[in-house]
Amino acid sequence: MLRREHQSFRTVLAANKVVRLAGAHDAMGAALAEQAGFQGVWASSLEMSAARCLPDASVMTMTEYLEGASNMQKALSIPVVADCDTGYGNNLNVAHMVHEYEAAGITAVCMEDKLFPKMNSFAGGAQTLLSTEAFASKVETAKNAQRDPDFFVIARTEALISGLSVEEALERCHAYADAGADAVLIHSKAKVNDQVLEFLRAWNGHRPVVVVPTTYPEWHVDDAAAAGVSVVIYANQGLRATVSALRDTFKTILTLGETTSLESRIASVTEVFELQNLDDWQKLEV
Amino acid sequence: MLRREHQSFRTVLAANKVVRLAGAHDAMGAALAEQAGFQGVWASSLEMSAARCLPDASVMTMTEYLEGASNMQKALSIPVVADCDTGYGNNLNVAHMVHEYEAAGITAVCMEDKLFPKMNSFAGGAQTLLSTEAFASKVETAKNAQRDPDFFVIARTEALISGLSVEEALERCHAYADAGADAVLIHSKAKVNDQVLEFLRAWNGHRPVVVVPTTYPEWHVDDAAAAGVSVVIYANQGLRATVSALRDTFKTILTLGETTSLESRIASVTEVFELQNLDDWQKLEV
Amino acid sequence: MLRREHQSFRTVLAANKVVRLAGAHDAMGAALAEQAGFQGVWASSLEMSAARCLPDASVMTMTEYLEGASNMQKALSIPVVADCDTGYGNNLNVAHMVHEYEAAGITAVCMEDKLFPKMNSFAGGAQTLLSTEAFASKVETAKNAQRDPDFFVIARTEALISGLSVEEALERCHAYADAGADAVLIHSKAKVNDQVLEFLRAWNGHRPVVVVPTTYPEWHVDDAAAAGVSVVIYANQGLRATVSALRDTFKTILTLGETTSLESRIASVTEVFELQNLDDWQKLEV
Amino acid sequence: MLRREHQSFRTVLAANKVVRLAGAHDAMGAALAEQAGFQGVWASSLEMSAARCLPDASVMTMTEYLEGASNMQKALSIPVVADCDTGYGNNLNVAHMVHEYEAAGITAVCMEDKLFPKMNSFAGGAQTLLSTEAFASKVETAKNAQRDPDFFVIARTEALISGLSVEEALERCHAYADAGADAVLIHSKAKVNDQVLEFLRAWNGHRPVVVVPTTYPEWHVDDAAAAGVSVVIYANQGLRATVSALRDTFKTILTLGETTSLESRIASVTEVFELQNLDDWQKLEV
Repeated sequence: MLRREHQSFRTVLAANKVVRLAGAHDAMGAALAEQAGFQGVWASSLEMSAARCLPDASVMTMTEYLEGASNMQKALSIPVVADCDTGYGNNLNVAHMVHEYEAAGITAVCMEDKLFPKMNSFAGGAQTLLSTEAFASKVETAKNAQRDPDFFVIARTEALISGLSVEEALERCHAYADAGADAVLIHSKAKVNDQVLEFLRAWNGHRPVVVVPTTYPEWHVDDAAAAGVSVVIYANQGLRATVSALRDTFKTILTLGETTSLESRIASVTEVFELQNLDDWQKLEV
Repeated sequence: MLRREHQSFRTVLAANKVVRLAGAHDAMGAALAEQAGFQGVWASSLEMSAARCLPDASVMTMTEYLEGASNMQKALSIPVVADCDTGYGNNLNVAHMVHEYEAAGITAVCMEDKLFPKMNSFAGGAQTLLSTEAFASKVETAKNAQRDPDFFVIARTEALISGLSVEEALERCHAYADAGADAVLIHSKAKVNDQVLEFLRAWNGHRPVVVVPTTYPEWHVDDAAAAGVSVVIYANQGLRATVSALRDTFKTILTLGETTSLESRIASVTEVFELQNLDDWQKLEV
Repeated sequence: MLRREHQSFRTVLAANKVVRLAGAHDAMGAALAEQAGFQGVWASSLEMSAARCLPDASVMTMTEYLEGASNMQKALSIPVVADCDTGYGNNLNVAHMVHEYEAAGITAVCMEDKLFPKMNSFAGGAQTLLSTEAFASKVETAKNAQRDPDFFVIARTEALISGLSVEEALERCHAYADAGADAVLIHSKAKVNDQVLEFLRAWNGHRPVVVVPTTYPEWHVDDAAAAGVSVVIYANQGLRATVSALRDTFKTILTLGETTSLESRIASVTEVFELQNLDDWQKLEV
Repeated sequence: MLRREHQSFRTVLAANKVVRLAGAHDAMGAALAEQAGFQGVWASSLEMSAARCLPDASVMTMTEYLEGASNMQKALSIPVVADCDTGYGNNLNVAHMVHEYEAAGITAVCMEDKLFPKMNSFAGGAQTLLSTEAFASKVETAKNAQRDPDFFVIARTEALISGLSVEEALERCHAYADAGADAVLIHSKAKVNDQVLEFLRAWNGHRPVVVVPTTYPEWHVDDAAAAGVSVVIYANQGLRATVSALRDTFKTILTLGETTSLESRIASVTEVFELQNLDDWQKLEV
């Protein structure tokens, strides 16, 4: 298959009690997530900035993040959910973002309520939030900017990340839902999921909830679903596994001076060709 | 360190009896190769096309390959050697390629003597070569196009890949050296390195020789060096390790339903931050 | 209006006896063509390469031409017809091209039967053609690659440009139509339109014919239509007017030392704002 | 000449009593400015955003503006001064900007003291400024980020644009100079140059002053120089002339139905080829 048709995220969400997304930073990682059985891919700004050795701090531009997300979507039948940070600026940037992502075939974006430029949520620092009203206006702007009714906007609150209360997070998410958000994402960097569970118990349930269990990895997807979670994002495990694999592989090559021992541990060139759909492309040769 | 200065490939080659290059497709992989101790990075068209789930067949454009190579070089103190396939067309394309790669800070490129559009050397198919004269003209064009005398052009023959003899490979490489090539690359997809050794014995030695032991992985770097090799490219082992690591990681997440068991096997978020030089970037915050 | 919906070229062609396209190289030129009343825009490789001060010789990449065409289409309600030179290589490149252009919202492309890399048709030189069979295979590949039945492929013969006969041009165009081309383009650099008229008289009419009267400017659109032409491309007059206007303006500034006299001759900043749809964008500010 | 070497802006500034820059949005416009005799080119964000039919409001990304500036510089022997708006965010963005622009061969950038995202200075609206301290910190960050001592940073105050006093503009510019700015730009949208003259009289002269006489076009360059101006930017006259020329040309084509009458008024295809340096490129053909 030279080119794939993909489902919208809204369609996938409607068809599943809980949707699992894998973080990725390029089309190959995304395709491997699809092959493994994930129902969608999280085009992660942490992953994409790490792949560039640049900080996850709004230093890379929308152009670059969009190119990454678009290249992933082209390789997939499952939808990409694009991590769009703060929406790249104010309402004008948000409208432009929706135009551009939608034009590129992306069916879902996620925006967070931090100030532009943002800093990664797991990094120290201020993590200052935009006012609830200003971010609700961004959500509303995004929804007004979409052309296809299927397009999906996730509003992510960083209230817990910035040290605010679960109550504040709820207040914000209700406001974002009222402004038109199709789902809310409650992010936390606590070692346990207590605050997220508290949020879920108090959430009125009229919009799906998304979680990112990076720092509380023991939370089973079934338990999350039972607690009211609709989408679980495994945001950066693939990236981190890649770092380890490359460190190990490069060290082995330099230490041993040859690569025979790697052959049984790493994918074959033929497997790489399969990921490239080479057989189908070669059928076009005359 | 927010930004790195890098050495030219020519400088690195002069300082080492044998130089080892690791294949990479993004800045993070390249930076990990540098950290491991490689002396340079091979901006591989197989790796970069695989990262896009596109065939390694001149389908991706010079713009895309250059962006990849440039992003790698920006993250490194060691030089990138850019795999430039056929030079992207004829002499005009080659001149433009040299202008663009040099402007982007790349200090070495490699061109091969197949017809544009090329097909990956390990794939089946015709692998038709350009005439020796036409490719020598491309080499000469590249050398005339460079501005900095340090810029380095590797001429790669696909003679063995296309089923021609060692004699033909030698004849071609001598012609390319006469046309100004700074080094030659003798590629082979045989399971053993016999032909490459035969080439090395007959090579007149007036230009460094580059090899890519993908299909004869047991060739130790010291033996290669003793046989007259100056540069060994480990072209795609990192990519293949990444494929395996992602398959394993994604399967684990879906099977176990949570990621606790991964934590001890994969790099930490802090390690990712280090690759992003986050601490140094955060010093700029006010 | 922040974003425009555009019609497909097929729709526009069906609705008009003759369609006039204006050459452009950026969104602003394209938008001015739409405002003037053109029914479509020709995303010209001559114009786009000239805007970069690079030769119109397959030196710029598909990535760059596609970005140009896509940026134009985003600013328009009328369709862009993308000048795709030779299809950027062989059948694989053509399939990839159709995937990418279609994904970017382009509804019509034009490919020509010269060898890659091509040289501009008005430049001297060999202008060697691909075999009829090989180019027909490219046309068939393009048609098989499209997803939307509305997508439109124009097959352009350079037979007359390369000094071949009208008979050869006809034979080629019939073969291309048989291979699935939605229209044919008969190009000529003669000072008169005799050969084109001869072609039109002999053309069986089962596919629309496109012409580019650059060197025979006196051919009136109504006469062309009466002779059987469906599409007339005014391929580069806008570019050439821009060159003259800039030469004149820059000379005036340097000669007079101030710009008062220009004010009445050039568009106002307010007119520029209108082209940017500034008022609509400012409504998003809070 | 296939490729040009360019002088740094610092070198050009040192060699001239007053330097005139022409605004441009692509390489062709920039090359025409050089041919006309300008000493540098202003890679204008108004021009580049207008060429995209997008507002001049930080909606386009640094990636896009940098690509534009870089493409211009590649076609020139004179330096590009890149209009970098607010520096695209905070200090981290500014450092990244300097890294990227310097890596692309740009020798001078200009940053302004408005909040990100900015709105064009001639448009209505708040035009809120960053604090003097915060912008001085950006200037200092930019200067610390540069690698080449020749790199040149212009600090632009929008104090007058935002309705503040000449005194405030002076205070700001002195702070920016103290922070390391290589020059200051005093912008005004008044119909007369009174405030700018008042600024110049009070300026201590220890850094060059740049002006942009868009709204007070009658100010002769010699008078500006006599008043203490070192650089005059004719920021958008070329763009506005292009709009008028395209409107006129397109209307003529549609009205007359043919283009004979245009031939004597617009540049020839041969002149376009000259801008593309086609003869030199064709010498590479074999």
